[in-house]
Amino acid sequence: MNITVVKIGGNVIDSPVALAAFLSDFVKLKGQKILVHGGGKLATQLSDKLGVESKFVDGRRITSPAMLDIAVMTYAGLINKKIVAALQASGCNAIGLSGADGMAITAHKRQKDFIDYGEVGDVEAVNASMLKMLIQNEYTPVICAISCDTGGNLLNTNADTIASAVASAVASFADTSLIYCFEKRGVLLDMDDDDSVIARIDPDCFDELKSNGIIASGMIPKISNSLYAVTHGGVNKVIIKSSNELLLNTGTLICR
Amino acid sequence: MNITVVKIGGNVIDSPVALAAFLSDFVKLKGQKILVHGGGKLATQLSDKLGVESKFVDGRRITSPAMLDIAVMTYAGLINKKIVAALQASGCNAIGLSGADGMAITAHKRQKDFIDYGEVGDVEAVNASMLKMLIQNEYTPVICAISCDTGGNLLNTNADTIASAVASAVASFADTSLIYCFEKRGVLLDMDDDDSVIARIDPDCFDELKSNGIIASGMIPKISNSLYAVTHGGVNKVIIKSSNELLLNTGTLICR
Repeated sequence: MNITVVKIGGNVIDSPVALAAFLSDFVKLKGQKILVHGGGKLATQLSDKLGVESKFVDGRRITSPAMLDIAVMTYAGLINKKIVAALQASGCNAIGLSGADGMAITAHKRQKDFIDYGEVGDVEAVNASMLKMLIQNEYTPVICAISCDTGGNLLNTNADTIASAVASAVASFADTSLIYCFEKRGVLLDMDDDDSVIARIDPDCFDELKSNGIIASGMIPKISNSLYAVTHGGVNKVIIKSSNELLLNTGTLICR
Repeated sequence: MNITVVKIGGNVIDSPVALAAFLSDFVKLKGQKILVHGGGKLATQLSDKLGVESKFVDGRRITSPAMLDIAVMTYAGLINKKIVAALQASGCNAIGLSGADGMAITAHKRQKDFIDYGEVGDVEAVNASMLKMLIQNEYTPVICAISCDTGGNLLNTNADTIASAVASAVASFADTSLIYCFEKRGVLLDMDDDDSVIARIDPDCFDELKSNGIIASGMIPKISNSLYAVTHGGVNKVIIKSSNELLLNTGTLICR
């Protein structure tokens, strides 16, 4: 069995036109597949309207209990269900999951370090057997970035990390590829040149690019997640590419 | 296989204490089970905060597009996921579903009559085979009152109706009981006497109670749904009872 895990973020989710175009491509993607989505701006917009303060430290959201409720409402609620409904209307038998559903994503609350991230979960386990059951029965899991601990607490979790963990979990029973879609055409050598896509990154190359300061800081966790998935997670390949080019042979290949 | 479909409403959902007590009983309920839940006050509270007007005609909510988004966020998002997470923490392998997920509940938008109810769906079909797959694999479906049409539109739907439709669907492959939980101990002969529970209602008895004006108008749709489930849906029995007494042999039995 071949499974492609595709992750989308804010650039797709925040635009109804971009989302419709992406989902149209996603439906055409051959083989079994899983969609993982982040949150986009909706949670921030809603928290602004409700007067719930959005706090960020080093570009990472601090999740207060009130903010977690908003994340659950938007990620697991409105965004997830709109994506599932749109896929169903296109003939893709989607089923939406948060981490709590069948304990798809078990996490533990992140320990306080120098920063208290609040209601944020680090992934412990993915329920691979549930994903296998759903996929074998022709369902397409659509997973949002909300995880759950064993005490019944929902937790906010980075969608890139969830995508990597899901891909590694399904790699236990299927040939698995992971595609990170974002606004650029791939990992760029020159941030100002959209055509400077690096075709291929392996661990040695990554170390070199980092030490040369070529890779921007925001890309480092994404590439680290990708490398972990191929070196430790059993994932065949990871591709970082534009959400506009899902069906094209483009992007940056991350490999062992 | 025996399946019990249990429906809860606002009196349980709006109180964290009542919800925890109910879920503790629900976990202990023997056999396979499905939970259907309504929305409670959260949607109205959120719409008030967001300045989205709640309109009611004859006690029924008119669902504007903005109100539908709020219903999806609260019913399919926060309420559904909190219930699923709490059940998981109690050892019940719950999985949350809206009508869009695997097209659990296909509906069509209600035709405009004298009243335009807005984004409201009337149930057409329940995906019994998905519910069977989940239950056979030891998952407990937790279904919210959001349905979906075949064009990818989410729709607000009465939770009592969804519970009745779900029970009728699973009755095609299992011996099925339906329990409607609410704030009273059953259907009462005298609204002011909580001990005046009518033990049993069949179609003839229902006609008599209606013509005598004994049954309050709010109860009529619930009993009609119940009678339809036992006379046309293949459901063995329906019980209308207090959410505090799930495990007790109490309430009003609705039968053929």
